[in-house]
Amino acid sequence: MIFVFSDFGVNGPYSGTMRSVVMRHAPDVPICDLMCDAPDRNPKAASYLLAALTREFQAGDVVLAVVDPGVGSARQGLVVTADGVSYVGPDNGLFEMIIRRAEKVSIKVIDWMPDDASASFHGRDIFAPVAAWVATDQAFASHPIALDARFGPAQDWPDELAEVIYVDPYGNLMTGLSARSLDEKITINAHIVSGARTFSDVSEGSAFHYRNSIGLCEVAVNCGRADKLMGAVIGSTVGVN
Amino acid sequence: MIFVFSDFGVNGPYSGTMRSVVMRHAPDVPICDLMCDAPDRNPKAASYLLAALTREFQAGDVVLAVVDPGVGSARQGLVVTADGVSYVGPDNGLFEMIIRRAEKVSIKVIDWMPDDASASFHGRDIFAPVAAWVATDQAFASHPIALDARFGPAQDWPDELAEVIYVDPYGNLMTGLSARSLDEKITINAHIVSGARTFSDVSEGSAFHYRNSIGLCEVAVNCGRADKLMGAVIGSTVGVN
Amino acid sequence: MIFVFSDFGVNGPYSGTMRSVVMRHAPDVPICDLMCDAPDRNPKAASYLLAALTREFQAGDVVLAVVDPGVGSARQGLVVTADGVSYVGPDNGLFEMIIRRAEKVSIKVIDWMPDDASASFHGRDIFAPVAAWVATDQAFASHPIALDARFGPAQDWPDELAEVIYVDPYGNLMTGLSARSLDEKITINAHIVSGARTFSDVSEGSAFHYRNSIGLCEVAVNCGRADKLMGAVIGSTVGVN
Repeated sequence: MIFVFSDFGVNGPYSGTMRSVVMRHAPDVPICDLMCDAPDRNPKAASYLLAALTREFQAGDVVLAVVDPGVGSARQGLVVTADGVSYVGPDNGLFEMIIRRAEKVSIKVIDWMPDDASASFHGRDIFAPVAAWVATDQAFASHPIALDARFGPAQDWPDELAEVIYVDPYGNLMTGLSARSLDEKITINAHIVSGARTFSDVSEGSAFHYRNSIGLCEVAVNCGRADKLMGAVIGSTVGVN
Repeated sequence: MIFVFSDFGVNGPYSGTMRSVVMRHAPDVPICDLMCDAPDRNPKAASYLLAALTREFQAGDVVLAVVDPGVGSARQGLVVTADGVSYVGPDNGLFEMIIRRAEKVSIKVIDWMPDDASASFHGRDIFAPVAAWVATDQAFASHPIALDARFGPAQDWPDELAEVIYVDPYGNLMTGLSARSLDEKITINAHIVSGARTFSDVSEGSAFHYRNSIGLCEVAVNCGRADKLMGAVIGSTVGVN
Repeated sequence: MIFVFSDFGVNGPYSGTMRSVVMRHAPDVPICDLMCDAPDRNPKAASYLLAALTREFQAGDVVLAVVDPGVGSARQGLVVTADGVSYVGPDNGLFEMIIRRAEKVSIKVIDWMPDDASASFHGRDIFAPVAAWVATDQAFASHPIALDARFGPAQDWPDELAEVIYVDPYGNLMTGLSARSLDEKITINAHIVSGARTFSDVSEGSAFHYRNSIGLCEVAVNCGRADKLMGAVIGSTVGVN
């Protein structure tokens, strides 16, 4: 299966044209839009989110992942194979947490570049055909690099990130932290939040943190929006003690 | 074909991860996202809307339907088979109008529950695999129940609901009523609305009710938004006389 | 492949039910949602946008294109075959720029109409089955017409349109003009805009025009929104000199 993970949003021709290129080059591989509202032009937050979503993937899957503020710049394109799953996208830190948490990793730089590649849409012009070729075991120009050669600044990111990394459509705050024990308290913008198992365990309007469906520490409000209540956005600091 | 009907919205990882689970378990069955903005956490309005959409389904189809404010609570999971179409989702009234309007109905309670089911996402963890198994005739733990054993409060809902049940992206108001005769007048928030066949039959800015494309009585404004004009939302009362 | 191009938006049951009809009638043909936020009820702007997107299509593809303010009125349904790609949709000018720019064109009027067609949703009831039949070489009632018999007013539209035809999710302004030379300046709402190759070639907050990924002259702001900065919307005039 080929999964698509991007910050393109659902509107515009971007998701559709990128998907059509994948379908042209790998007509027999099922394609699944995983999410299209990854943290916007924010490879750091997206890296922690994507790593939490890997539990949906199986060996042999390919993930076409594009969160890429630097398109048109000198950043390279990568194929990262981590525990049997291949990730295709930009070398800007997006794959950092996947690389770091995997048991077995190899990294290749994409050397292939079509003559008519646009300056602004490498997702369609480079990453989509490469993802299709990886999924169907077809060759393309590339060369391996060592783990140490990966995107520099990302190497300084912590293993777990005490920040909000995603605000979901319900206003829930996903953090870059693994789920916490129910006994622990966390803090966001001076709001002190206790743990609970799920929504019905707290009173209406109350905030709580819980283990979300992808294993992260998430802050929610029963019948409310945690983002509004706490004035929190992607990047807001999470206090743990 | 497997249809998906949910209130998850298009953003977030929810629709994508649920769909990927269906694709894993039923790789040869086509999957169609029917709508993802069903009445939010409102099984009652969603029940009338889903029942109107059944004309799109054929015997053998499976509908994975998740509008589920009580996830994590004690409500059961159901497989409802109505006139050859199977519906998989929560036992909270969502399938009430389908059950009531079908000629031939059987209901099974889903007994299967994976050890690692999350507390918050039964759509992905329980209903998606069960929908795939129903579509491919695979066995899973379940037991039949009688029609009378279905969700209690829903049994008091009227056969036709004189309320707005959905506001579409154009601001049109779908009601829980079958299409009315053109001679009839209806009332929403003190606005008296006459019938017309279609948009071009009324003057610009005028409201009218008409038979919408799924057979419901719908209120629209030619070149305008009925929801704004009438201050109407899901749940607004519709007067009929 | 069957592509879907519409102004239906992602919410509501419209895209899903139309897609399911295509899947019923052409189960073995892959379907790709190209975009669902084409210029709203604006066949003129949509015509220039769709013509720019044709570079994504290959001979044998079918494009189900529905931007149709006149549904329920007397406009005809068309199958336009242009350089091997077939377009199915309303005869309201939507296919004008495709017809005009193609080397080889034929046009057929759709005579088939099911008895139970709704008054408001020809996308689902007429265009979707016809698109599926065209994709699978199945017959349906139709008759050819000459190029000159196409939608009248559209024949007066210019070959290139000096207007904004689409505002993308990033606030970038696509124009109905082919990409301009970098030396040229264009004007939108009194903002004079120079050319650049891509975002990183201009300073933060600066507007520029560039060749976008579908070959159009597009106006963007590095790290900003051109629509907000310039107060521009679909239909805003573009000055060229």
